[in-house]
Amino acid sequence: MKDIHITQETRMANAIRALAMDAVQKANSGHPGMPMGMADVATVLFNRFMNIDPTAPKWPDRDRFVLSAGHGSMLIYAINHLLGYADMDIEQIKAFRQLGSRTAGHPEYGHADGIEVTTGPLGQGIATAVGMAIAEKMKNARYGNDLVDHFTYVIAGDGCLMEGISHEAIDLAGHLKLGKLIVMWDDNAITIDGDTDLSTSMDQKARFAAAGWHVLECDGHTPTEIADAIEAARKDPRPSMIACRTIIGFGAPNKQGSHDVHGAPLGDDEIAAARKQLHWDHGPFEIPQAIYDEWGRIASRGAQARAEWEQRLNTATARAEFLAAEEDEVGTLPAAIEAYKRKLSEDKPKVATRKASQMALEVVNATLPFTVGGSADLTGSNLTKSSGMKSITPNDFTGDYLHYGIREHGMAAAMNGIVLHGGLKPYGGTFMAFADYCRPAIRLSALMGVPTCYVMTHDSIGLGEDGPTHQPVEHLASLRAIPNLLVLRPADAVETAEAWEIAMTSKTTPTMIVASRQNLPTVRTEHVVENLTARGAYLLRDPGARDVTIIATGSEVEIAMDAADKLAAEGIKAAVVSAPCFELFEQQDAVYKVEVMGTAPKIGCEAAIRQGWDLFLGPRDSFVGMTGFGASAPAPALYKHFNITAEAIVSEAKELI
Amino acid sequence: MKDIHITQETRMANAIRALAMDAVQKANSGHPGMPMGMADVATVLFNRFMNIDPTAPKWPDRDRFVLSAGHGSMLIYAINHLLGYADMDIEQIKAFRQLGSRTAGHPEYGHADGIEVTTGPLGQGIATAVGMAIAEKMKNARYGNDLVDHFTYVIAGDGCLMEGISHEAIDLAGHLKLGKLIVMWDDNAITIDGDTDLSTSMDQKARFAAAGWHVLECDGHTPTEIADAIEAARKDPRPSMIACRTIIGFGAPNKQGSHDVHGAPLGDDEIAAARKQLHWDHGPFEIPQAIYDEWGRIASRGAQARAEWEQRLNTATARAEFLAAEEDEVGTLPAAIEAYKRKLSEDKPKVATRKASQMALEVVNATLPFTVGGSADLTGSNLTKSSGMKSITPNDFTGDYLHYGIREHGMAAAMNGIVLHGGLKPYGGTFMAFADYCRPAIRLSALMGVPTCYVMTHDSIGLGEDGPTHQPVEHLASLRAIPNLLVLRPADAVETAEAWEIAMTSKTTPTMIVASRQNLPTVRTEHVVENLTARGAYLLRDPGARDVTIIATGSEVEIAMDAADKLAAEGIKAAVVSAPCFELFEQQDAVYKVEVMGTAPKIGCEAAIRQGWDLFLGPRDSFVGMTGFGASAPAPALYKHFNITAEAIVSEAKELI
Repeated sequence: MKDIHITQETRMANAIRALAMDAVQKANSGHPGMPMGMADVATVLFNRFMNIDPTAPKWPDRDRFVLSAGHGSMLIYAINHLLGYADMDIEQIKAFRQLGSRTAGHPEYGHADGIEVTTGPLGQGIATAVGMAIAEKMKNARYGNDLVDHFTYVIAGDGCLMEGISHEAIDLAGHLKLGKLIVMWDDNAITIDGDTDLSTSMDQKARFAAAGWHVLECDGHTPTEIADAIEAARKDPRPSMIACRTIIGFGAPNKQGSHDVHGAPLGDDEIAAARKQLHWDHGPFEIPQAIYDEWGRIASRGAQARAEWEQRLNTATARAEFLAAEEDEVGTLPAAIEAYKRKLSEDKPKVATRKASQMALEVVNATLPFTVGGSADLTGSNLTKSSGMKSITPNDFTGDYLHYGIREHGMAAAMNGIVLHGGLKPYGGTFMAFADYCRPAIRLSALMGVPTCYVMTHDSIGLGEDGPTHQPVEHLASLRAIPNLLVLRPADAVETAEAWEIAMTSKTTPTMIVASRQNLPTVRTEHVVENLTARGAYLLRDPGARDVTIIATGSEVEIAMDAADKLAAEGIKAAVVSAPCFELFEQQDAVYKVEVMGTAPKIGCEAAIRQGWDLFLGPRDSFVGMTGFGASAPAPALYKHFNITAEAIVSEAKELI
Repeated sequence: MKDIHITQETRMANAIRALAMDAVQKANSGHPGMPMGMADVATVLFNRFMNIDPTAPKWPDRDRFVLSAGHGSMLIYAINHLLGYADMDIEQIKAFRQLGSRTAGHPEYGHADGIEVTTGPLGQGIATAVGMAIAEKMKNARYGNDLVDHFTYVIAGDGCLMEGISHEAIDLAGHLKLGKLIVMWDDNAITIDGDTDLSTSMDQKARFAAAGWHVLECDGHTPTEIADAIEAARKDPRPSMIACRTIIGFGAPNKQGSHDVHGAPLGDDEIAAARKQLHWDHGPFEIPQAIYDEWGRIASRGAQARAEWEQRLNTATARAEFLAAEEDEVGTLPAAIEAYKRKLSEDKPKVATRKASQMALEVVNATLPFTVGGSADLTGSNLTKSSGMKSITPNDFTGDYLHYGIREHGMAAAMNGIVLHGGLKPYGGTFMAFADYCRPAIRLSALMGVPTCYVMTHDSIGLGEDGPTHQPVEHLASLRAIPNLLVLRPADAVETAEAWEIAMTSKTTPTMIVASRQNLPTVRTEHVVENLTARGAYLLRDPGARDVTIIATGSEVEIAMDAADKLAAEGIKAAVVSAPCFELFEQQDAVYKVEVMGTAPKIGCEAAIRQGWDLFLGPRDSFVGMTGFGASAPAPALYKHFNITAEAIVSEAKELI
């Protein structure tokens, strides 16, 4: 091991190392190797480049720092502590990985300031950062350098770059020439199982170059080399990847450079040896004031930059518009949706809800100037592009529509990044069956509590001939299972408009609009001012005293209404409940729930499996739906084949009453 | 458009084109562009290289053909029809995409012979093919060229190569030097949304080269170029990617080369024009006998090769072993598991079920010679490697353990490929939270009905400090939602052994063994010969007449037993049901179900959300579990924090009775 020449930045970096090894040791759990290995790179990045103000952690024009290798969480906790973030005092560091602390095992967005995104599931950070860099470039195109001019820096590990999502992210970033995205790869040649050559022979530098990136390398323990690389990266119009050759666990003399140091505490002896090796003669969790002062200068520089920015904002003509977007102000949207609903109740269109979604988007996008549409190469199928929208291209970011490519996972993570960046409101579409492809990013939207909007069309066997690979059957259940996600499955154009209002006004909950491929009649034929979809479920057809209640969602509401007609002809009174959003219904009070659901026997109807329907149905109630995978055939043939018909509901109803 | 010089292979290819455009037109749905564009490449591949016998579609040493771009399903249906597969007559082609036909919208494994894997979800084909090529190389290392010596050919589109899973697949394939894997990329520069340059600037050739692949290119409409490329690919020790420059919809004079031809019928006029352009003067679905004869020669060549192979097999010393592996014979496994269970009932170990899983694997892997272990870089955490196992390396395939790298999705798809190849039985592990990363491949295991075995450890908040990103909460529900997947969550070492027996003897159902990070006592303390886990749920503690029934799974069975003890101390009789597999319990008869569940009030307990528990619980029953995401803290603190405790069960029980 080369002897450490103690410079100012080495001292600053050693403070990170000390805090990381002490915190992991105290918690008896965590990953010291990565923070110790990347401490020099992170120190140079923050010391010489990062433009942030810990007293204003949400300053819109701050540089973004994304720790994609989230298991190295002590790196960011140590840095934010040293920078003086008010909510990251030394007690938080001591409480690393303990109940109620802000210092969770992996960085959690919302737990503490200065954490731009929740990371830990590998690859999510780099893919989310792509969205942040897209947002920066879009807003820069709208507001110019005076208001928007910042970098997005990422530290990524071998794991991030092995995950498939990294491919989608770097392909998209390279294509869009996101020149202000800079990824520092912790090239330490170690994974949990051992050396990286156990499982990969990838030439990462060639790989990034193939994706159109600017590629550099540096010794990750030599500040001048690190700084030169970052400097060059900032100047290049392409996104940059800097391969930082590092020694994992740098400073721990007997364990560094080995996978032993990856995910386990060093132990008291090795920590003592590391203190000696690093010339760090301070006690556990002790940082000399001189080192706090050195880190504090970064914060002061940032505060100064922010003050200058505030002045520019205050004199900018776009000030009000800029702030409205930052605040995600919905303005006249509710009124516009209400007017549109009124028109629908007159027109009573018979359209697929994916088409109804596009019609609603005409209203949404005309009202909100900061929406960003997109699709994973299914624009003409998802119908996510409204008439006024303009596609973004690598050389023109003045548009508002993104062609994410055949990259559902990359799209979902990028949308999270756009939301997290702030000032833009993204939604993006794919086929619902491929929600599985982006599920880890959907989960992160929900866990972070950010209002990313997913548009999932072709939502059942109703898509027909494409067959079981493309037909969602278990997806409604599996998506409803994700906590804090609103799954909205509208039955017609009216409910679709209401679903869009919910999605565009949501602040802390991601939403998913689930839409049909096939045409559906307007079932809400009379105008109601209230957004009934926001109730989760409501009485669509009320026969007064009821013999039976039919509960349905989306495309099956039409079938339920038909069944109710048939039952009425036989003198049986059937109520029909439309239930576009289970999660919102759960939030209603008990009185409303009983009012809607009644006490008569119930039949649920959804072209999907029953799991999750126990919210409405008891053991003596019935369900008309799917029990397994679909098949390839025209949709009407499939509904008949799987017995999801008005006749089936009628027959169940007669049995129940 | 260059004039078509009609050679034998052009005629053969035009037969594919004609069938594709006619079938899509008749179905009024489907993708003609890809089969027409790749018809020449596919014809040269089959005519000059493919070694298959349509009369013995499961011949172990056949070449594998994977249509990764599954939307071009008419390509493989047309080829299999022309080759004379008995179950692919012209009526099947005419019934393309109709109910009950073998010619589904996307190729479905098991629907017809000669379909090696279900494709359609993009990228799955290429990633599954990696598993097939791994299996070939492993079996070749065991049995030599006489018995195992075949190629895996893949046709992949732009979509396949944009999906993240393709990165995991090609990185793994390049690393392992899968020289007999040959990918033909349909380089047509068109996606559904338009030209590929809408969303990608990737240099695919450089990208594959960076992953260690041998890269070639050819004009996809010039047979000699195609053949030369395939010939060179077969000789290279690296996996090969051939960039085939093609014109999508080749032969349709007015629409070819445009995204209009990607996913919609050509229309009668354009089909007539194409017939003229291609000099194809036969009616719809008419193929001249001369062309059938030309394709038939491929089949005859394959039949001859197979006969020679059968002779070699019959004289091979490894014949019995080879056939036993092909037949997936479980031999003495049930007896070995029973003996092991007997020992466990004496030892009563207190171990994490992930450790119990490793202990069971000692028995499994000592008994079955054809298992293939693996992990997505979490070998020491998943404990998937048993003592006798040897890691496979790029230059030595005699082992039986795969380091899949940090590639959950690639691992899952590769395991599907190993199963589909035949003769090997793979299982592979990751953290359960990252089941989301490989969900599309898990779904395909279930849809195809192949017994891929997933090992998902760290299965709840019980993993502790890693926090909510790593803690499954909704995963049990979302995985149980997948039809035809057995989710097995054993409570102790005994149930874990039983779960492994179920997994290793399953023939048409994928299995998932869900295991704890934390230690758990043996709850089944008395030996039972029967595999009770195979019942799905069973009475673990039977107090005779019951006041209440507590149903729990996995790590919560210990808590349920503790609660029952506490209740007994207060004179309340609580039965405890261990329910390791909901799906298997559903298959039991009504008498058994009532016997186990009883009629007393019920309390479910699982450190996960309630969704799915309506299988056991009615609206008046109780559930002790999670309602949202977890947190970062030591496991005991979390169980207490989220109130998943014996005390909570006791309190619920008292309320219920």
